[in-house]
Amino acid sequence: MADEKPRKRNLKLIEELGTSIYKEVEKGESPYLDVPIRNLSNVKYDKEKRMITLGSNMSKRFFLNVGHVRKFVQTIGVAAKSRELIRSGLHTGLRDIFYQIKHTIPGTNIELVSVQEETNKAIEDLELITDLTREELHINANKNGSIAGEVIIEDRGDTIDWSKLGSGGWSIPSNTEDITFKKVDAKFVIYLEKADIFERLNEDKVWKKLNCVILASQGQSTRGIRRLLQRLNSEHGLPVYVLTDGDIWGIYIYSTLKFGSITLAHASDKLALPEAKFLGIRVDDIEKYGLKKHLIKFKDVDVARLQQVKNYEWFKNSKEWTEELDKMEKLGAKVELNALSSKGLSFISNTYLPEKLKEAKFLD
Amino acid sequence: MADEKPRKRNLKLIEELGTSIYKEVEKGESPYLDVPIRNLSNVKYDKEKRMITLGSNMSKRFFLNVGHVRKFVQTIGVAAKSRELIRSGLHTGLRDIFYQIKHTIPGTNIELVSVQEETNKAIEDLELITDLTREELHINANKNGSIAGEVIIEDRGDTIDWSKLGSGGWSIPSNTEDITFKKVDAKFVIYLEKADIFERLNEDKVWKKLNCVILASQGQSTRGIRRLLQRLNSEHGLPVYVLTDGDIWGIYIYSTLKFGSITLAHASDKLALPEAKFLGIRVDDIEKYGLKKHLIKFKDVDVARLQQVKNYEWFKNSKEWTEELDKMEKLGAKVELNALSSKGLSFISNTYLPEKLKEAKFLD
Repeated sequence: MADEKPRKRNLKLIEELGTSIYKEVEKGESPYLDVPIRNLSNVKYDKEKRMITLGSNMSKRFFLNVGHVRKFVQTIGVAAKSRELIRSGLHTGLRDIFYQIKHTIPGTNIELVSVQEETNKAIEDLELITDLTREELHINANKNGSIAGEVIIEDRGDTIDWSKLGSGGWSIPSNTEDITFKKVDAKFVIYLEKADIFERLNEDKVWKKLNCVILASQGQSTRGIRRLLQRLNSEHGLPVYVLTDGDIWGIYIYSTLKFGSITLAHASDKLALPEAKFLGIRVDDIEKYGLKKHLIKFKDVDVARLQQVKNYEWFKNSKEWTEELDKMEKLGAKVELNALSSKGLSFISNTYLPEKLKEAKFLD
Repeated sequence: MADEKPRKRNLKLIEELGTSIYKEVEKGESPYLDVPIRNLSNVKYDKEKRMITLGSNMSKRFFLNVGHVRKFVQTIGVAAKSRELIRSGLHTGLRDIFYQIKHTIPGTNIELVSVQEETNKAIEDLELITDLTREELHINANKNGSIAGEVIIEDRGDTIDWSKLGSGGWSIPSNTEDITFKKVDAKFVIYLEKADIFERLNEDKVWKKLNCVILASQGQSTRGIRRLLQRLNSEHGLPVYVLTDGDIWGIYIYSTLKFGSITLAHASDKLALPEAKFLGIRVDDIEKYGLKKHLIKFKDVDVARLQQVKNYEWFKNSKEWTEELDKMEKLGAKVELNALSSKGLSFISNTYLPEKLKEAKFLD
């Protein structure tokens, strides 16, 4: 069983919210919630912390206000459900919680929520109000991704050795809050954006040779993966290297993982990875590793995204990144990690990775 | 290590192909390949086997034919690479093999392959010519999905107990050919189309209570998952129940898993699951489980897909399926598995599944 302390603390936070509202009702006052504002005007890049964060602007949401009441009641509805979940030790997903809350208010034709978008927003508000993550509220997002390497964990009473899971690896759950790290022999983590590269590195047992952990998402990185990376980094000091294609989409993935994103600005403290390093293919690697004939010319979307990413404050103010992005723009083409296999199936495991890691010239 | 026998047999098949071509060249003849035709005219539903299969129409592909030579050489290129992979015991992905084969033919400007579509097709042709699956050729498709339950396997020297993997489960590899089943205590398999339902059932340890295996894909089911299901079914006699939403997309997923698909008609013997049973929400369940208020009205795409699926030979000739699909059409609405959570978070685990399995009235 995971540590009981955070669960009790989280439960207390939720219950205090309920109690304070109850007291206001008893006093005959209109209860309200203080909700941090989440639009662009209140999102900024924090240079000290090196992450996108939410500013301190707040709004009050009143129960006795026709324009506020629906959202107020929805947020309280989610809070009540979350309390139930934390108490029972069970977890639920975003779709399920929508159905659990969806019902007609007795004596009326009014549905508390009609579409999932409403519970999603209420959950985000509750995260802000309580400063608890969705996962701490026992509400899980999507599950995705695999992991392998020199780490032993405990999860729901099972001891799981990430180095003894054959060709598959451990399937990463949506919620990685309650995992206990029992033994961390790995010295760093390689984050991959592609499951096929994971299978290559796993077959080559790269994690054994380089003494690390390899982790792949399939498509967009989940919150569970981001928390797992952050915990390995902050609790065990493991550097996280982001291994992507040599293109603007890889850099974009890196940017989101490291600095956070606007939509999740309120959760940056729990999700962002300011210490992540870029291990993807760089423009100079194309020459160095003879990948010139595997270049894929930019399409309009690549060019547009490149312009956008170049203007991110954290890249614009970095000399190294500006140089790299300028080179990429001039080249007007991208190259995939898979192209390394033209040099030999295990070239990526036996040459590219060890060389890059030894050089240790990471874009930051 | 997996059994060496099939590997040797597969290697022999590839080498015989090479030897026969070599002999034709030595005799001064134009070597050729016999390739089964893969267009719609040669695909049919086999009533005996209850699966979509490829007919016996063949075409000859000659080396000394301007229209054939490119494809001929590409197929031989893939065969040579596959031989190398089988011999070395390594595996590769579809994107990687494209890069491994892509090169300019010496003394010319001609690239052996220019786009991945060409190697993909060559691989499919090679599957047909040799009667080996892509996985047996050591070429893997995508990796996806999680599994948990009362089974112990051996894979790449690791012993993996699917019942001791916490909240995550085992991450299913793209290639499940070489897994050895050491201990199968489970009595059946529940296949899920949604990862969030997997997490619900896994948290409830349904696989322990019902003595089964639960398996979820995330999106489209991979070949690795389909082979794994087929192996559990054919080698260990485990029935496979397909648990989907009550909508035409769920039935479509069931149909593809069970009867195969037109694009993979040549691999039905290795991928289809004629004994799979439908465990998804049926129209009558809506009344029975009080889900009426959670109906979601059909959109045009739902109606169109319903018409299409109704016309599938295997459904059209089944009285039960026709009745079910007619009822669904009349209802004009769908209902999600997640809606069951309006009855309680674990209603699906504690009531729906045990009841449906006890009733044992499965659509077939």
